[in-house]
Amino acid sequence: MKHIVVLLFSVWIANAQTQKEQLDLMPWPQNINVTEGTFALSKKFKVNITGNPNARIFIGATNFIRRLDNRTGLFLEQNFITKVSEIPDAELQINCTGSGKIEINQDESYELTITPNKITINAANDLGALHGLQTLLQLLQNNSTSYYFPNIKIIDSPRFTWRGLMIDAARHFQPVDVIKRNLDAMASMKMNVFHWHLADDQGWRIEVKKLPKLTDLGSNGNFYSQEQIKDVVKYASDRGIQVIPEIDVPGHASAILAAYPEIGSKVDNGIGSYVVQTNSGIYNSALDPTNPKTYIILAAIFDEVCPLFPSNYFHIGGDENNGKEWAANPKIQQFMKKNKLADKHDLQTYFNMKLIPMLKIHNKKLMGWEEIMTENMSKDAIIHAWRGTNEGVKPGESLIQAAKKGYNSVLSNGFYIDLMLNIETHYLNDPLSKNASLSLEEKARILGGEAAMWSELVTPLTIDSRIWPRTAAIAERLWSNESIRDMNSLRKRLKTISFRLEELGIMHIRNKEVILRNISNNQNTNAINDFSNVCEPLKNYKRNGGGKKYRMHSPLTLFADACTSDASDAFDFKLATSNYLENKNPENQMIVTNFLKKWIVMNTDLIALSVNAPLVHQFLPLSKSLSDCSAQILLIIDKKQTLDRDNINALLEQANVRSDADVELAVLNDIKKLLESSF
Amino acid sequence: MKHIVVLLFSVWIANAQTQKEQLDLMPWPQNINVTEGTFALSKKFKVNITGNPNARIFIGATNFIRRLDNRTGLFLEQNFITKVSEIPDAELQINCTGSGKIEINQDESYELTITPNKITINAANDLGALHGLQTLLQLLQNNSTSYYFPNIKIIDSPRFTWRGLMIDAARHFQPVDVIKRNLDAMASMKMNVFHWHLADDQGWRIEVKKLPKLTDLGSNGNFYSQEQIKDVVKYASDRGIQVIPEIDVPGHASAILAAYPEIGSKVDNGIGSYVVQTNSGIYNSALDPTNPKTYIILAAIFDEVCPLFPSNYFHIGGDENNGKEWAANPKIQQFMKKNKLADKHDLQTYFNMKLIPMLKIHNKKLMGWEEIMTENMSKDAIIHAWRGTNEGVKPGESLIQAAKKGYNSVLSNGFYIDLMLNIETHYLNDPLSKNASLSLEEKARILGGEAAMWSELVTPLTIDSRIWPRTAAIAERLWSNESIRDMNSLRKRLKTISFRLEELGIMHIRNKEVILRNISNNQNTNAINDFSNVCEPLKNYKRNGGGKKYRMHSPLTLFADACTSDASDAFDFKLATSNYLENKNPENQMIVTNFLKKWIVMNTDLIALSVNAPLVHQFLPLSKSLSDCSAQILLIIDKKQTLDRDNINALLEQANVRSDADVELAVLNDIKKLLESSF
Repeated sequence: MKHIVVLLFSVWIANAQTQKEQLDLMPWPQNINVTEGTFALSKKFKVNITGNPNARIFIGATNFIRRLDNRTGLFLEQNFITKVSEIPDAELQINCTGSGKIEINQDESYELTITPNKITINAANDLGALHGLQTLLQLLQNNSTSYYFPNIKIIDSPRFTWRGLMIDAARHFQPVDVIKRNLDAMASMKMNVFHWHLADDQGWRIEVKKLPKLTDLGSNGNFYSQEQIKDVVKYASDRGIQVIPEIDVPGHASAILAAYPEIGSKVDNGIGSYVVQTNSGIYNSALDPTNPKTYIILAAIFDEVCPLFPSNYFHIGGDENNGKEWAANPKIQQFMKKNKLADKHDLQTYFNMKLIPMLKIHNKKLMGWEEIMTENMSKDAIIHAWRGTNEGVKPGESLIQAAKKGYNSVLSNGFYIDLMLNIETHYLNDPLSKNASLSLEEKARILGGEAAMWSELVTPLTIDSRIWPRTAAIAERLWSNESIRDMNSLRKRLKTISFRLEELGIMHIRNKEVILRNISNNQNTNAINDFSNVCEPLKNYKRNGGGKKYRMHSPLTLFADACTSDASDAFDFKLATSNYLENKNPENQMIVTNFLKKWIVMNTDLIALSVNAPLVHQFLPLSKSLSDCSAQILLIIDKKQTLDRDNINALLEQANVRSDADVELAVLNDIKKLLESSF
Repeated sequence: MKHIVVLLFSVWIANAQTQKEQLDLMPWPQNINVTEGTFALSKKFKVNITGNPNARIFIGATNFIRRLDNRTGLFLEQNFITKVSEIPDAELQINCTGSGKIEINQDESYELTITPNKITINAANDLGALHGLQTLLQLLQNNSTSYYFPNIKIIDSPRFTWRGLMIDAARHFQPVDVIKRNLDAMASMKMNVFHWHLADDQGWRIEVKKLPKLTDLGSNGNFYSQEQIKDVVKYASDRGIQVIPEIDVPGHASAILAAYPEIGSKVDNGIGSYVVQTNSGIYNSALDPTNPKTYIILAAIFDEVCPLFPSNYFHIGGDENNGKEWAANPKIQQFMKKNKLADKHDLQTYFNMKLIPMLKIHNKKLMGWEEIMTENMSKDAIIHAWRGTNEGVKPGESLIQAAKKGYNSVLSNGFYIDLMLNIETHYLNDPLSKNASLSLEEKARILGGEAAMWSELVTPLTIDSRIWPRTAAIAERLWSNESIRDMNSLRKRLKTISFRLEELGIMHIRNKEVILRNISNNQNTNAINDFSNVCEPLKNYKRNGGGKKYRMHSPLTLFADACTSDASDAFDFKLATSNYLENKNPENQMIVTNFLKKWIVMNTDLIALSVNAPLVHQFLPLSKSLSDCSAQILLIIDKKQTLDRDNINALLEQANVRSDADVELAVLNDIKKLLESSF
């Protein structure tokens, strides 16, 4: 009987027309038209490519076939795809009119059509075709026994041309395999700019053959060789991604100055007194813009670094130079007076303007954080907007200012994923809100945005869980229509997207389990896992206030590292609480009380676990607090007890104490509502 | 009250003397003396190095500190260790008399002493000191709230000088990060030889700049650059590991001949007819030993490859050349007649002897699979014994023969971990059994052994679960005293070792979960996981009989890839069955029936899961079979039913049918015993 039900169910699935809303597509395409019928996938399925594409489509199509096969286990017959028109009667036809260039403002559009016997991707070039393949992989459906694509027509293109991710490889070095798997994930989300932060106070990360001291003295042995850089740039290009290197100057310069103190701004050049920093935070160290040798060394760096990156842009950083070393050095002060440079901003502009022609030799235009936008800055430069409320300015204001002044600009304010904020903050952060009073021309200068993964608190073990799946929401903001803003739809689709990211090699789910096993000391991880699903790492840099608690070699294998923003049970509990408070029917009550009971048992389990797991003790007080609150709420719900305001406040205060584990209870607000529900 | 119990318990733990048997050391040291007392680990803990070591000890000691810190979360203060005598009063003193060389027959001994306030590692050189650090990491204990080392004295040294792991990077390419994490794991098990199989019918995997066609036509783009090779060799050397490259000739030559068909043995040189193979199995392709150009090309290869590897040995393969192309080529036959070469063995010897001086130019001695041991082979060569029952010879016989004839020899027969045999097979496989009738001199020629990871059926996703934790047992066989053979002790210690391997980056546990999630189609994986713990992949190459089912691009993301040999529940069930059949008391009965009930529920869950997970269907029949058997046994145990022989046979036959999922029931034998228990 059971089998008959199963059978009927699958027949029903196969015959029903797929609804648009069922599809877990991300970023959501511009135009979707689902029709009746399906394309059944079989092991005979093959791909053919026509047109005049760049060879990257062969790699992309081969990777597509392998992902499809690994997912379905169909033993697809096709191996490497190496040229056009290999299999003219293949079921999937990819036609690329021309060859895509890895530059901004390329035509990345595609049209994907699925009929019962044929799938077609038409694109102006291979870049659009690669996007079409990613969409096709997301369209795969299954019933009980087989896989199929729904019949559909999708016409799609990006809203913004700049859809980036920055990875800071300076604070914590990120080896090539980490970068590559993140490039794969970016490509799956149709992102096209990888901004590689390669130098900062905590390390110089790129080989410069003529200046070996940079890595000998500035990297602790952790840097990319030029061959590795080329390998990554090629890997990115094969996936339609442009790589923008960043060498942050004149501030954030401790590592370069540990190697070449003679170009530093300290009095007497501070030889011997610059060191590679091991704490976070902002340092005083800055290059000396008045020293000709500074430009000789930078020119030598550009000579080697620029040719490694085919991009037309070079990011020179330019942020957070506090000017203290400049102010304290009489020679520099004298130079400023002589050259009529009123303040540190003028001096930095002087410095930046010297770099423009140096980069132009290598056909590079300058890009920099918003501080570079001073009066005389060339209009060729891209302004990278990052500051906001934390820095005492209107969030992203410089983006608008830059566009008005005639600069191309890119938004990262609101996309700082290291702040550990919830996904909604990033998803609803539109670089070009409806209210922006900009002319069409000015609007066109807003190129897009970039998620920024600063790495003070992330290692190769945890970086994936900080970037993903949240960056998929940012990718959607930058690709999809501005009207696509439904949080429920986003959350629903993200469950599948998050799962599929591991298919690409992203390790956010699997590595969480590694950390939990370590914390549990190889005991059962269920209770810790339950707790991790209601805790979130402290936000807004509170975890490492002032950069003092964590140094670059501190352990990042702790409970806070297993937790993520958007704690998975917190959202469900919020919903449960809201439903219950609206309607206290038995069903709604049960959902809430199941959570509460679970947390009481969890706390008992954690205590038992802690007998043989020292690391568990860090979060026991917080777990006890949640358990105590849960017990009280159960009493309230059962009408066995009511609490006065003082009791409630005491409980909540306890639950809100800064935890040694550097996490906070993501359910606290709803706990509060329930505790207060008896009033 | 609960807290007091916890507290008392931890005090008790801290004061009790650790028993030798409690320690999860592997490989088990030669001499251990545990005494009362402990060394308490605190964040002040530091390391100091004295003596005249190679710089690798600084890297090893820094890695040691970081692993200790990541495990304990203590925020240890010490960062990079870069020179001797940095912190004279450090708690851990490492003294290396001299500098170790990456060669065989080095002094790898160490003495580790732990007292309440001091830990000392004394070693002849850094190689022994590195081993001492690995032992120290394994000694870390904890109570409820803190970490400590037991007071102990260990004197340790290896039984064999050659403790190797071979990884085949030809069949499935294994990127640098895969190799590096396995080198870390090897070092943790005190292994010291990494044998890198770099060329075979399915791919040529190393850049040769003067012969670009090797990788252009022979690698499908998957190969190591020379810089990557150097990077890996350095990484290995930093961990005390020698790297031996293997270029397999004259057989296994399809890839090299796809690039240079003109040195193949086909009539008319078979230009255009050699291709990189995509199936497993043995191919006819062989270099032409009678063609002078063969040696010109090999010399060009050696010129570039040899300098990349500082090792004194070069592995030329030499196995499984079937001689068919030689037999079919009249020119080659003519050459043999003219040179009085009686058969293919003589011709291969002729070929091998030509290679000896070519390698000698580069200060390399030859190593090869046992087929190279022919009459005139130089006594400098190392014979690599691999054949056994499968090949119709006495297992490892060539090892003994080689030693008697005056060759150094290394054993891999019995260490073929790709056969998917259970750990006992490998653990009890002694290169030098007590019964071997060899002189002391002959015994000394048996250098040790090598685990062999052939990669026809392993990808970067699964390779770790094929190598580990089983290779730890092989490492113990090669390091520890021959009397260390207790399977119960091995199994107990392996649980911790397996867990700690993930600390090093090995992914055998986490990647299993990735595969299970894919099979479940992102549903709950508990039932699949339960079933995977009683199933093992088909053994002895049965999974890919004749090399026909799986091609190099076939999916290896299936149920069999999630399963491992030594299925974790199978051993526990075996024990439960044995106890129950010996004494049918209620307790023993409950343990058995809990398993049986679990498998019945599991089968129901799998059926439910399969409604939305096509890949589950592959193993549903086998799961049903286990469930049917379990139901019958429950009836028998409850004395509600007895079965006749025919019924039992029918059930067992059903459970023994070759599964589409390429796995077998590891509990079948015990199921049989229980079914027959009513007789």
